[in-house]
Formats: sequence, structure tokens, C-alpha cells
Amino acid sequence: MIAVDKISLVGYGAAICTTCSFIPQVWQVIQSRNTESISLLMYCIFVFGVFLWCVYGVVVRDLPLIMANLITLILSGLILAMKLRDTTSKVDN
Amino acid sequence: MIAVDKISLVGYGAAICTTCSFIPQVWQVIQSRNTESISLLMYCIFVFGVFLWCVYGVVVRDLPLIMANLITLILSGLILAMKLRDTTSKVDN
Repeated sequence: MIAVDKISLVGYGAAICTTCSFIPQVWQVIQSRNTESISLLMYCIFVFGVFLWCVYGVVVRDLPLIMANLITLILSGLILAMKLRDTTSKVDN
Repeated sequence: MIAVDKISLVGYGAAICTTCSFIPQVWQVIQSRNTESISLLMYCIFVFGVFLWCVYGVVVRDLPLIMANLITLILSGLILAMKLRDTTSKVDN
């Protein structure tokens, strides 16, 4: 039988990976100033979804859920902001 | 006070958004055949994290968690595969 703490470790590992995975994407977008192949629609839906996860976390009072989704919200929000900047500057030109 | 079913609705809405958000990214990558601004490292870590969420879902026997993460695993795995194809073809040239 698997111990409870080992199960929790898998859950924490999963949360850390899916949250921190956005760091290299933010870094790449800042460095390259290129968002061409990033989907605007994906990040619109994703950021809204992560915002809903934060709301859900607040309502059910789950601090790890709030924290993980708040970090993801900031990181994915940054990517969305940079994509929007590129999209609007393209429209302007 | 918010009814329990309304709280669940927020959770389901969050899960549907964060899962389905990858569909427009998969579609854009297939259509444009361009993955330049997509971070390889992001999708490596993200796919591994979602795989861990699936394992966690199986261990705690949470079917909605398994289903949502299985769909996300397939969609993000497709993006990773197309990014890897572009990366290796660049190395070949």
C-alpha cells in the first residue's frame, strides 16, 4: 500500500510542475519578444479558467489551490499581456 | 451563502476552461506549422506535471481529475510533439 504522504508528494510535484512550467515560456517571450506562434485564444480561455480556479479555491478555502493558481494566473497573465501587446501593435501598423 | 452546486459549477467551469484552452493552440500549430515562440521547456515540464496529475487522480480514485488531465495530457502532448519535430528538423538542417 502507498503511504498517504507519498500520494501527497505526487500531488505537490504535479502542482509545482504545471505551475512552474510557465516560467520558461514567460522568459522566452521576454527574451525573444516573439509571440507569433502562441495562441491568443488559448491564453484568453486559460487565464479565465485559472481565475475561476482561484475563485473556487477561495470559496472552498483551499490555500494550496489558491497559491498555485495565483502564481499560474500571474505567469499566464504576463504571456497574455505580451501577446495582446504584439496583436494590437500589428493592428496599429 | 453560496449553494454547494454553485461552487461545483465554478470548479467545473475552471476545469473545462483550463482543459479546453489547449484546443486553439493545437489548431494554430497544425494550421500554421509554426512553433517558434512556443517554449520547449515549458511543454516538457507541463506534460510531465499533467502526467503526475493523472497518476495522482488514479491513486486517489478521482474520475473527474483523471478525465480532465487525460484530455490536457493529449492536447499538450500534441503541442510538445510538434515542437519537438520542429526542433529536431532544425538540428538536421
